[in-house]
Amino acid sequence: MDSFPSLGAPDAGDTAWMLASAALVLLMTPGLAFFYGGMVRAKNVLNMIMMSVGAMGVITVLWSLYGFSIAFGDDKGNLIGDPTQYFGLAHVFGGAYAADPDAGTGPAIPLAGTIPLSVFVAFQLMFAIITVALISGAVADRLKFGSWLLFAAIWATVVYFPVAHWVFAFDDVTGTTGGWIANKLQAIDFAGGTAVHINAGAAGLVLALILGKRAGWPRTPFRPHNLPFVMLGAALLWFGWYGFNAGSAVGSNGVAGATFLTTTIATAAAMLGWLLVERLRDGRATSLGAASGIVAGLVAITPSCSSVNVVGALAIGAVAGVLCALAVGLKFKFGFDDSLDVVGVHLVGGIVGTLMVGLVATEESPAAVSGLFYGGGFDQLIKQAVGAGAVLAWSVVGTAIIAYLIKFTIGLRADPESEAQGLDESEHAETAYDLAVLGSNTSRLAAKEA
Amino acid sequence: MDSFPSLGAPDAGDTAWMLASAALVLLMTPGLAFFYGGMVRAKNVLNMIMMSVGAMGVITVLWSLYGFSIAFGDDKGNLIGDPTQYFGLAHVFGGAYAADPDAGTGPAIPLAGTIPLSVFVAFQLMFAIITVALISGAVADRLKFGSWLLFAAIWATVVYFPVAHWVFAFDDVTGTTGGWIANKLQAIDFAGGTAVHINAGAAGLVLALILGKRAGWPRTPFRPHNLPFVMLGAALLWFGWYGFNAGSAVGSNGVAGATFLTTTIATAAAMLGWLLVERLRDGRATSLGAASGIVAGLVAITPSCSSVNVVGALAIGAVAGVLCALAVGLKFKFGFDDSLDVVGVHLVGGIVGTLMVGLVATEESPAAVSGLFYGGGFDQLIKQAVGAGAVLAWSVVGTAIIAYLIKFTIGLRADPESEAQGLDESEHAETAYDLAVLGSNTSRLAAKEA
Amino acid sequence: MDSFPSLGAPDAGDTAWMLASAALVLLMTPGLAFFYGGMVRAKNVLNMIMMSVGAMGVITVLWSLYGFSIAFGDDKGNLIGDPTQYFGLAHVFGGAYAADPDAGTGPAIPLAGTIPLSVFVAFQLMFAIITVALISGAVADRLKFGSWLLFAAIWATVVYFPVAHWVFAFDDVTGTTGGWIANKLQAIDFAGGTAVHINAGAAGLVLALILGKRAGWPRTPFRPHNLPFVMLGAALLWFGWYGFNAGSAVGSNGVAGATFLTTTIATAAAMLGWLLVERLRDGRATSLGAASGIVAGLVAITPSCSSVNVVGALAIGAVAGVLCALAVGLKFKFGFDDSLDVVGVHLVGGIVGTLMVGLVATEESPAAVSGLFYGGGFDQLIKQAVGAGAVLAWSVVGTAIIAYLIKFTIGLRADPESEAQGLDESEHAETAYDLAVLGSNTSRLAAKEA
Repeated sequence: MDSFPSLGAPDAGDTAWMLASAALVLLMTPGLAFFYGGMVRAKNVLNMIMMSVGAMGVITVLWSLYGFSIAFGDDKGNLIGDPTQYFGLAHVFGGAYAADPDAGTGPAIPLAGTIPLSVFVAFQLMFAIITVALISGAVADRLKFGSWLLFAAIWATVVYFPVAHWVFAFDDVTGTTGGWIANKLQAIDFAGGTAVHINAGAAGLVLALILGKRAGWPRTPFRPHNLPFVMLGAALLWFGWYGFNAGSAVGSNGVAGATFLTTTIATAAAMLGWLLVERLRDGRATSLGAASGIVAGLVAITPSCSSVNVVGALAIGAVAGVLCALAVGLKFKFGFDDSLDVVGVHLVGGIVGTLMVGLVATEESPAAVSGLFYGGGFDQLIKQAVGAGAVLAWSVVGTAIIAYLIKFTIGLRADPESEAQGLDESEHAETAYDLAVLGSNTSRLAAKEA
Repeated sequence: MDSFPSLGAPDAGDTAWMLASAALVLLMTPGLAFFYGGMVRAKNVLNMIMMSVGAMGVITVLWSLYGFSIAFGDDKGNLIGDPTQYFGLAHVFGGAYAADPDAGTGPAIPLAGTIPLSVFVAFQLMFAIITVALISGAVADRLKFGSWLLFAAIWATVVYFPVAHWVFAFDDVTGTTGGWIANKLQAIDFAGGTAVHINAGAAGLVLALILGKRAGWPRTPFRPHNLPFVMLGAALLWFGWYGFNAGSAVGSNGVAGATFLTTTIATAAAMLGWLLVERLRDGRATSLGAASGIVAGLVAITPSCSSVNVVGALAIGAVAGVLCALAVGLKFKFGFDDSLDVVGVHLVGGIVGTLMVGLVATEESPAAVSGLFYGGGFDQLIKQAVGAGAVLAWSVVGTAIIAYLIKFTIGLRADPESEAQGLDESEHAETAYDLAVLGSNTSRLAAKEA
Repeated sequence: MDSFPSLGAPDAGDTAWMLASAALVLLMTPGLAFFYGGMVRAKNVLNMIMMSVGAMGVITVLWSLYGFSIAFGDDKGNLIGDPTQYFGLAHVFGGAYAADPDAGTGPAIPLAGTIPLSVFVAFQLMFAIITVALISGAVADRLKFGSWLLFAAIWATVVYFPVAHWVFAFDDVTGTTGGWIANKLQAIDFAGGTAVHINAGAAGLVLALILGKRAGWPRTPFRPHNLPFVMLGAALLWFGWYGFNAGSAVGSNGVAGATFLTTTIATAAAMLGWLLVERLRDGRATSLGAASGIVAGLVAITPSCSSVNVVGALAIGAVAGVLCALAVGLKFKFGFDDSLDVVGVHLVGGIVGTLMVGLVATEESPAAVSGLFYGGGFDQLIKQAVGAGAVLAWSVVGTAIIAYLIKFTIGLRADPESEAQGLDESEHAETAYDLAVLGSNTSRLAAKEA
């Protein structure tokens, strides 16, 4: 028998932060679109952006139909939430709201904890969107747009919604029995190192393998066409990530404050770590490295931001920055064309953050759990590894099935002519830029040099 | 006799969300500047941006002098609020504030509902700015900048401030008697489908007609010069729109949550609707279409976000996406050069959203009103049509008078040489880009191809 | 003997606004990176961005080690806060937090006023970052990146952290005895006109003088390479500045509302003032002028936003807009290459705003202090001048020592070949753009013109 969300008056302060957080996480996906879009060549930037933006459309509709229900409905067999319980967001709006803006004397509405259930639904939707969008970085420049939208829809349904249930559905928050990783295993994944980053990173790897390498890769250098866009994207991601991490406190309190702070510290450490690797290895610290290091740090502190202190945050950031800077070279070694380093940053960063909870978690944190280095033994580390492994396996198998299904039906890959022409023209009938200004300095300079 | 705002201690949670919302809506205007700026040719992008940014300057000053008072002062003859009551924002600051940040024990200050009146003044200012800025899309590439600033100042004074009074001034929120559409007609326009979008869309149409077509239109194709900027603008608009719509709850509560969610759902549906039209009609879904669909959905759900459930949000979004995608072709049919589709997106989208409240409004929503499809009969639909028609008529007549007034005094239109050269150089003595990098790949590639 | 922060339950509403504010101020530094990055030539944009982004990394780590402690530890000799008291953010996390998101019944945590101390630490960190980043505008195109990072680290330690203690550490907010400007002198610097803008502006001037002029300056025109980026940066700064100014209320209340409103009004007035100067002097109002005017207004209202009414905000904005528009010409007159006008905008704007508090402060404001024009005599004006002078002197002397130290050890300046090549390639081994699209209109047009 299903249980239902409690009715009551939300806390206005908690709700205010969660409304802001949901908007911040929404902004992350366009941020990702620019982070990715700046990295590809100018003939593929629109397609890259459209994979993120298209996911915003498709996943939102699915989420409002059955996605939220699969993720946060009553647990069925330790696998999914009941897809019928909140189908079409039943019980979310739950009747009339008085227009009285004073929450203290307002009417009873469905709650998730101390906030309106509608806000929780919106906040969690943004996680579903960005997780799907993350995958697109692995398959830049060669995937048909229609096939991407179909992949996004099926992958969200079969892979993400169940995994979100395992990791994010805590018992009783929405009045239901939640998922096994959160409640039974009790692995710590505060804001989604497993559910979001390991999940998307593994999917990206599998999809890139099944899709195959880009023509010319790895001989041809694929230079980023617009590095300021890459940095703009990283900046919007960093900004929005405060909603992602500190918003995962589902309230406006000390947990939000602590996670806000550890998130910032780890991100800074990761950026410096990445730049240091570049400086020592290549002689130069790059802006692409800074942007990548920022994202790597944000990824690694996502599962761990609630369970570490300053030392832990610095350590996780530094390790993630250094390891991810090294890991992005793996694709050349093993020969898979993970075009924009979803594996090197999200899979590796997600694993680093998830496992290091087992090492540097400390009582002096909101999670109040001790990892190996703080006298807690191997207990938490094992839980973390089990959670990470389960999500990784589910994502690998699920993605492979979906990708082959599409490959052998409508097909995955753009034809060679389209790939050479660029997907902006072949898939979207557009070119990104038309910067020639008749009579301006720009074109005069270009002409003079020629 | 004028009545005055009540004094008291604001609710900190409601205030937090409204501060954030005001900032979010402020960001929408630069967002619009990039949405529009990316669509014009590279020789007009700065002028396009400057029309939005210039409006931020002019409207803010007018608002702080008499604009807020006309919109939210005591009703005079069902037409305007008393311009003297809050002149120079009298009674808004209202004396000393103690520095005690704890609202619960804080001093009495002027309130609007449960938030400081100062926050309400700032929030509503942002609406005035963006409404004026929206119009600029209709007149790209040919309007003199000084004439634009003058138009903006007069239009805000004569058209927007009164209409905002009719639609947004609810009785007693700021201690005054409010406007007729909100209080007497009781048409539902939660966040401004009539006051903002129909109003600006109608003004854009009239101004474009009086200004005339661009040289070469419609034969010459006017290609967007920077589609990533268009998408950046759409993303900032989407992000900021949460302040616009969910902020219109004027509190941090279930109404804000419900409107946040319906806004997201309708936007996604509209984007998919627009892309579907493109795909079926042209064979390709474009990024310009996705960005336009996003804005069309946001526009249509603006009046209706508080009165619909999930089905209603999906329906309004899908209808707006499809209809606006078709409507942007009207200008070619009827021969008016609404350059960036203010009519097709804002006027049509605003009408769709405003009228569909009368169809799909449901008791199961904060507004708790039933439209035609939910057994409520034609009552609400008629109210909606009357409100929309009144604002449309006021805007058309007001805009025409102002436009002719300027046309026959200082003139509206840039001379043909300036138009050919581009307004960036002729009006602002600037060019947007100087991207040639001596010694870089970029220029070398350009040279090689030449 | 050190005193410690009080323990208690934070106010959820105040916390919500401060979490949002901290995120907003974080975004200002990437905003600055684009504001500055768009102004340099295309061969130096990445280096310009990297100076801001690099500061985000370095300053965050120092802040979490000893920076916060120097700024907000117990006062030692009217100079600095105790660096050991909060070393490594001791006492900030302060033990376990229960996961209960309901602040009202939550556990006791360390507080700063009514918000978690962790949020205050994060909020103030963002101020430290942006202050350092501001300096970089004065030294565009010629400073070695490694030397910049070293300068940033030492300058923050020796100049900013102490000055932040003087100005921002109010007695008892974090349970300590605070700094002399805030508590003894009682100069009004609400959000950092002295600590941030005069401080950074003076440092920029000194560093530019010691570093020397760019090759070719002032004969060669250094045209901005991407004015839309300049405006994007200004827009993000404006948006983020609400966190900076209204967030400095450290709560969600009438003070935040009043400062939000005065900030907006002054910014609009400054933009119009700057554009008016351009129009009268040069015949054309530019987008660079609008962006610069926006920043000048934001700077000037930063110290004064809590102590003025509408008239004061309009006056401070207009004076700052006009004076800064004139002041940016000083560098040509006096021959110092303050490349992106840190002196003209931040030093001059900061002085205007700080001193005008002494003129137009009014009882009818949160600060409830009267300046000269409101019958308060010269008292407040003298306090303001003393505060500004002290910070200016400290910054000039400190910056000079640090700059010479670096100059005569690892060196400050890139060699002439690197400067000619551009710092993007010489310092970061990158070029910002590769916009040639084979087969696209863009390159075809470029080719045709050639």
